[in-house]
Amino acid sequence: MSERARSRTRARITTFEDGRTRERSDQLAAEEPLEIRLVAGGRTRTLAVTMRTPGSDFELAAGLLHGERIVTDRADVQRIRYCTDPDLDTAQQYNVVSVELAVPELPELRGLDRHSFTSSACGVCGRAGLESLESTGCEPLPRGPDVTADVLLRLPARMREGQGIFEATGGLHAAGLFTADGDLVCLREDVGRHNAVDKVLGWALLEGRLPLFDHVLAVSGRSSYEIAQKALVAGVPIVCSVSAPSSLAVDVAERFGMTLVGFLREGRFNVYAGRQRIGSPAPVGEP
Amino acid sequence: MSERARSRTRARITTFEDGRTRERSDQLAAEEPLEIRLVAGGRTRTLAVTMRTPGSDFELAAGLLHGERIVTDRADVQRIRYCTDPDLDTAQQYNVVSVELAVPELPELRGLDRHSFTSSACGVCGRAGLESLESTGCEPLPRGPDVTADVLLRLPARMREGQGIFEATGGLHAAGLFTADGDLVCLREDVGRHNAVDKVLGWALLEGRLPLFDHVLAVSGRSSYEIAQKALVAGVPIVCSVSAPSSLAVDVAERFGMTLVGFLREGRFNVYAGRQRIGSPAPVGEP
Repeated sequence: MSERARSRTRARITTFEDGRTRERSDQLAAEEPLEIRLVAGGRTRTLAVTMRTPGSDFELAAGLLHGERIVTDRADVQRIRYCTDPDLDTAQQYNVVSVELAVPELPELRGLDRHSFTSSACGVCGRAGLESLESTGCEPLPRGPDVTADVLLRLPARMREGQGIFEATGGLHAAGLFTADGDLVCLREDVGRHNAVDKVLGWALLEGRLPLFDHVLAVSGRSSYEIAQKALVAGVPIVCSVSAPSSLAVDVAERFGMTLVGFLREGRFNVYAGRQRIGSPAPVGEP
Repeated sequence: MSERARSRTRARITTFEDGRTRERSDQLAAEEPLEIRLVAGGRTRTLAVTMRTPGSDFELAAGLLHGERIVTDRADVQRIRYCTDPDLDTAQQYNVVSVELAVPELPELRGLDRHSFTSSACGVCGRAGLESLESTGCEPLPRGPDVTADVLLRLPARMREGQGIFEATGGLHAAGLFTADGDLVCLREDVGRHNAVDKVLGWALLEGRLPLFDHVLAVSGRSSYEIAQKALVAGVPIVCSVSAPSSLAVDVAERFGMTLVGFLREGRFNVYAGRQRIGSPAPVGEP
């Protein structure tokens, strides 16, 4: 089955509208568990299980590992593949991904083990918030590119143009990576906003494009701590969301020199941090 | 500081609109980590760290534990309190909650340990999906109440009336528990949709109201596997969301006899499973 086909399913539904009911067929965004296994030195270990929309699974795994600092570079990943465990049926095999690390032994993950089923939003937060980002090596972002307000205002439409599944199901979040000129570089969709971001940043990792100092990341919905943290680790200096940021996302942005934009829709936006990277709109009458 | 005050923060922002910039003050939804510790038999163990909006933290902890089947009843919880660890400063103390269980020993959580930092969406999913829900004791929901389409159509407005923080920040998800007649019983808000649901269901647990066989749960945004799973464990027969459900949420609903409603907004809705609980709209002209 194609990736596109696996990302959606069909369902019979009943619609209630204007006092009438109607039976019809509808498309749903697919949601299935993905188990991510680490392999090194002949040992295998399950790192996480996350609910995701099938598709771009290797990128999702790479992005999640990068956000958690288990890998920092393309060269740290030897190979990623679907599970070939004969105990699993075919459908299940596509829900298990093994990441073979280019290290002689499985990394120590004792720090993570403390939190038995922490949200994937929280790879770092539990270990003392913003200070821990610094203590684990996060540095202030370089000045990076300037963008114009006009470029930012065009991003939502460019996201929508690229969102195939969302158009069909209305049920998916999206993350888009753009150049500072507003050209779309990579767009991914998922039932989980953090997964969509992991897929985009994992794509960049596997393409050898990190750090993303010259790029803009745009996400549907809200921007939370986890979005800001993942962008920071990947070196993205400008993060935009269609809806509101949380207080902690703003704190991360201020602390590490990130430009954080919210409510980017309908021809307007708010800047919550890093205003200096955004040029004013061109005055009327100038080219 | 009051709970209301802790749930939001103020920020200076710059708004870009119609080619002009304007500085102003804005409210943000607060987001902070909450560490949940289990205490039993003189031992303490960190169960999870989740990013949440401060407020209703005990309910959040209780709801999360219930969703994970660590507690099933009010009597399983001896006491919940904020941490008084003198190593933590006052602000941090309000980000650590200890749940004292009414059992002689800490529960075995080996099944959870496998997944080091699984999303909290995934307490169960990784352990083999729908079958695991049955194997861990989930049973089909009883027939439960019927609701009319008119009652459902009124829920979004009643949610909004109760949503204090959202009105101010535009940045929060909400979950509301209703009677089958559409009366609001409990409403909670959070940056995370699953947290808002945990707070509502945790409230019901601590109030001794489980199972919720006569109730309707409504959530903002999408309904995912995790929402359906949490509702199922709490016995909620009717789950509504403002946006789309995922394929796995529909699968859970079909398997366990749950009524699942989506796109409940602007005077219409879709039914994805359990149509039999919803009466048709009253024909025009009848009382």
